[in-house]
Amino acid sequence: MIRTVRYWDPETHAVHLGLLRDGQVYSITRRVPAFTDPLPVWYTFRALDLSVEEGFARLVDGVQPMASYEELAAQSALLPPVDAREVWAAGVTYERSRQARNAETKLQDSVYDRVYEAARPEIFFKATRERVIAPGQPLGLRSDSAWMVPEPELSLVLTAAGDIVGWTLGDDLSSRDIEGENPLYLPQAKVFSRSCSFGPVLLWNTGAEVPAGWTLTLTIRRGGDIAFQGSVSLQQLRRPFEELVAYLRRDNPVLDGTVLMTGTGIVPPDEFTLQPGDTVDIELPEIGVLRNPIAAPLGK
Amino acid sequence: MIRTVRYWDPETHAVHLGLLRDGQVYSITRRVPAFTDPLPVWYTFRALDLSVEEGFARLVDGVQPMASYEELAAQSALLPPVDAREVWAAGVTYERSRQARNAETKLQDSVYDRVYEAARPEIFFKATRERVIAPGQPLGLRSDSAWMVPEPELSLVLTAAGDIVGWTLGDDLSSRDIEGENPLYLPQAKVFSRSCSFGPVLLWNTGAEVPAGWTLTLTIRRGGDIAFQGSVSLQQLRRPFEELVAYLRRDNPVLDGTVLMTGTGIVPPDEFTLQPGDTVDIELPEIGVLRNPIAAPLGK
Amino acid sequence: MIRTVRYWDPETHAVHLGLLRDGQVYSITRRVPAFTDPLPVWYTFRALDLSVEEGFARLVDGVQPMASYEELAAQSALLPPVDAREVWAAGVTYERSRQARNAETKLQDSVYDRVYEAARPEIFFKATRERVIAPGQPLGLRSDSAWMVPEPELSLVLTAAGDIVGWTLGDDLSSRDIEGENPLYLPQAKVFSRSCSFGPVLLWNTGAEVPAGWTLTLTIRRGGDIAFQGSVSLQQLRRPFEELVAYLRRDNPVLDGTVLMTGTGIVPPDEFTLQPGDTVDIELPEIGVLRNPIAAPLGK
Amino acid sequence: MIRTVRYWDPETHAVHLGLLRDGQVYSITRRVPAFTDPLPVWYTFRALDLSVEEGFARLVDGVQPMASYEELAAQSALLPPVDAREVWAAGVTYERSRQARNAETKLQDSVYDRVYEAARPEIFFKATRERVIAPGQPLGLRSDSAWMVPEPELSLVLTAAGDIVGWTLGDDLSSRDIEGENPLYLPQAKVFSRSCSFGPVLLWNTGAEVPAGWTLTLTIRRGGDIAFQGSVSLQQLRRPFEELVAYLRRDNPVLDGTVLMTGTGIVPPDEFTLQPGDTVDIELPEIGVLRNPIAAPLGK
Repeated sequence: MIRTVRYWDPETHAVHLGLLRDGQVYSITRRVPAFTDPLPVWYTFRALDLSVEEGFARLVDGVQPMASYEELAAQSALLPPVDAREVWAAGVTYERSRQARNAETKLQDSVYDRVYEAARPEIFFKATRERVIAPGQPLGLRSDSAWMVPEPELSLVLTAAGDIVGWTLGDDLSSRDIEGENPLYLPQAKVFSRSCSFGPVLLWNTGAEVPAGWTLTLTIRRGGDIAFQGSVSLQQLRRPFEELVAYLRRDNPVLDGTVLMTGTGIVPPDEFTLQPGDTVDIELPEIGVLRNPIAAPLGK
Repeated sequence: MIRTVRYWDPETHAVHLGLLRDGQVYSITRRVPAFTDPLPVWYTFRALDLSVEEGFARLVDGVQPMASYEELAAQSALLPPVDAREVWAAGVTYERSRQARNAETKLQDSVYDRVYEAARPEIFFKATRERVIAPGQPLGLRSDSAWMVPEPELSLVLTAAGDIVGWTLGDDLSSRDIEGENPLYLPQAKVFSRSCSFGPVLLWNTGAEVPAGWTLTLTIRRGGDIAFQGSVSLQQLRRPFEELVAYLRRDNPVLDGTVLMTGTGIVPPDEFTLQPGDTVDIELPEIGVLRNPIAAPLGK
Repeated sequence: MIRTVRYWDPETHAVHLGLLRDGQVYSITRRVPAFTDPLPVWYTFRALDLSVEEGFARLVDGVQPMASYEELAAQSALLPPVDAREVWAAGVTYERSRQARNAETKLQDSVYDRVYEAARPEIFFKATRERVIAPGQPLGLRSDSAWMVPEPELSLVLTAAGDIVGWTLGDDLSSRDIEGENPLYLPQAKVFSRSCSFGPVLLWNTGAEVPAGWTLTLTIRRGGDIAFQGSVSLQQLRRPFEELVAYLRRDNPVLDGTVLMTGTGIVPPDEFTLQPGDTVDIELPEIGVLRNPIAAPLGK
Repeated sequence: MIRTVRYWDPETHAVHLGLLRDGQVYSITRRVPAFTDPLPVWYTFRALDLSVEEGFARLVDGVQPMASYEELAAQSALLPPVDAREVWAAGVTYERSRQARNAETKLQDSVYDRVYEAARPEIFFKATRERVIAPGQPLGLRSDSAWMVPEPELSLVLTAAGDIVGWTLGDDLSSRDIEGENPLYLPQAKVFSRSCSFGPVLLWNTGAEVPAGWTLTLTIRRGGDIAFQGSVSLQQLRRPFEELVAYLRRDNPVLDGTVLMTGTGIVPPDEFTLQPGDTVDIELPEIGVLRNPIAAPLGK
């Protein structure tokens, strides 16, 4: 398993890309200053005909670790694992999501039923680079929503050509009441300040990973207790990755490092809504834990 | 009336901001190298307590024009009049649009009727800077849509605080069939390669402009003929600018130079769809003509 | 008197340009985000036909100060007062300097005598932007020099066209023994890591300043004592500013914000050399005090 | 022999790094978008434990050439082969240079004799990135000099740590009369507009190159004739590369991609001076030909 992080290195006052191994972080950037992001590394390995494992083995050969992952997290030094200029997302890719979104709305002939079955999936723009929140940093509630939930999503990291560089975890923080009021309000339910985070690491695609065998767990803590916990198997994802990527890229060239969130299969009960002070943990053992506290709406 | 353009100056190989007066373009950038975009100029005039007219009068006092507007357009030197990193749009802000979008869909209890009347307007993300097409450059059709139209929209240019710096014209090129199939497909109907253009100038807000008195005209030419032409009065815009800006910015800080398209009130007949080779002209006399040719879908 | 500083604003995590008045700093950047450096402000005032005093009076009208100058200095938040990409310097512009440099060398028919009298002054490249040390930050000694002194110099801040935007203080830290060994070693005596600082403020050229009436004082402290102190009147500067600027710019276009140090008229006794831990203060009452500690040579 | 070029690719409107093989240019940038300059490639090969030959063989395996070198040169598409932010130079490193510089001056106890023999070489700052002229572009004469010559110099391309990435050719265009008048005028004799070019390729250091066996030739054409031609063997270079690099870097950290010109061993007769319209060719068979036309001084 190859996992990388991006972090702010206090010594050099610069962004570093690091390999995460046994809880320790080995700086790739110290060996190749131009490597501050996974995409150039991906292109380099491919152009040099090196497997991901062989490439990283060479890159860190004889190198001492910079710090432990826990130290970086504790110092709020973690950055999104990819410098993504655009984050997109898919919706209604799990049966559980279809059920939940139907429950939000009063429409008959549900748009959610139809998109679940249709050839064309639901794909939407989620965030620009400026709007992405780093792992560990707070996501923020909307001032005009009384029903908000995190949406834990396995996320793909793509090249411009649609290759899957690897996977990470994403939180598509959403307003269920604004969305439920009218599907035309989806952008306002999805795209706002501090509504998107992904990380904490990039799990590289070496060809050996089997996402269908993965399980994603959402845990929301409030005070000292668990306010909600749920899991879903990736087997419940009804859309193949390749199909989501194909629709994303149709007539729509994307940039290297684009993140595509693949939809949520875990939805808290309808009576649950996030509160300031909650902590959201999205976990997938092969990737790690994406943790974000929840903050109150911005003042105005 | 104060109108500015941005263009590529071949002499200095750089982006220039210019004042447009009597068909001639006077470079502001030659006098103040840092002024390559309207926003810094707006902030400067406000901070120095100068009216827009007084400020520009001083900036071009005694200056010779660089070129005529027609020359710049003919040389494909025009750039978007604002360096906007984000373009957003509003929908169903005219009665004509409500009718048209209802016609696209088979849903009862129309989401379009509801958003037309509701307190919350439809607001969506339209384009990132990389996805904006300059005036005069081609917009592109989708390969999987058989029903596409330009959406001519008066557009606001905003500061981060929501001040209206001025107005420009925008084309929210859209796929009516993809949208009509399911409102969850709106992003795919709206956000794709070469789907957004705005310009050709920025008409500055001096306090003397009366948008309610404006008329916007769409002319689509095919071969040597006019394939469609229609007009709408801005009086038909049912949402005040301030309301659209307020909803855009709610829990959603925007960047200086954000463009907000205010919706379309001109919709060709249902049987009309754009073809490669068409030319789309969006005209509002106080602003000018935004012209974009229509190109075939990207190959893949 | 108009004086500006540049500093790192911890609230916005950005570079700010500020007006210094009565010990308080008023952020210009908060009013006009594009104004992070004096040069755009200079061009703007000139293009808008505003005097420097009138322009700054308007810019800070009704504005509350950000911080005191002393606070910024104490927090090491001061930056060079101009974002200069190039720093140049003149030599042997004072009789005292001619004497001193003659004492360093064993050559007859002294190159220093000749350049003092000749039409063409001595002009040399001193530092790139990366090599400029901010006010308050340490300058560094060379590992291979046993005789080093600061060279306190009134410095001009220029536009590309050679206009004097204003004045600041500069320290042209130099190795007297390396230079004295052979004038061909001047670059190595002048251009090395941490060999150049300027500031702390920019005193703007309003037309009312009379540099010939200024006095520059150098004070070097060691332990708790004054190890050296000396002064020189600007009347001792034998080269007019315009002449130095003309020679700098001959066949040599310079960038906006170029700093030109005008030579030193204060030279400690021959037996004096700087030591790590010394503090160097260069003072001119109309400008302020440029303070830099002296650090030991870099390890290797 | 591994040789790379940098050029402007008209298709992608971007800077490309290319491998030059049998007169054809293979774009490296097309395979790895982050590789637009040699230094990241050098660091990558070293970090991945690949020899330069093995690395480049893999990078261009199966790739079709972009264009021929001659085509790029004819289109003025060549750029300096390294994106160097600083260019430095050494002087009096050949006997012939010592003789020539003595002839320029009237000083006894010549500074040139002394620096030729001394432990410390002459090292000086030659150009910033903005002042570097690309291969094929014009170098410019000074308006106040009647005696100017090109100085053809083998040049080193360095990492920040002082490793020799490879070699290229450099032209240290100089004014012999300004320098001869007083060595304190060296910067004005060396550092001015259009006074520095290097290229046309970077010859990579694979460990197999033997610079001591190289011969450098200078050919100056005027009208249809050869106005001057001369050669020098690198065996005449009296300073080892490592020594020049060591003195450059002493107390003076340099940036990745710094170019160090190693001095000239070819000097035209004293009666020769460049004229506008001349063409200067600097040739070393293992590297290629650096060609620059000579332009008249800038107007003022």
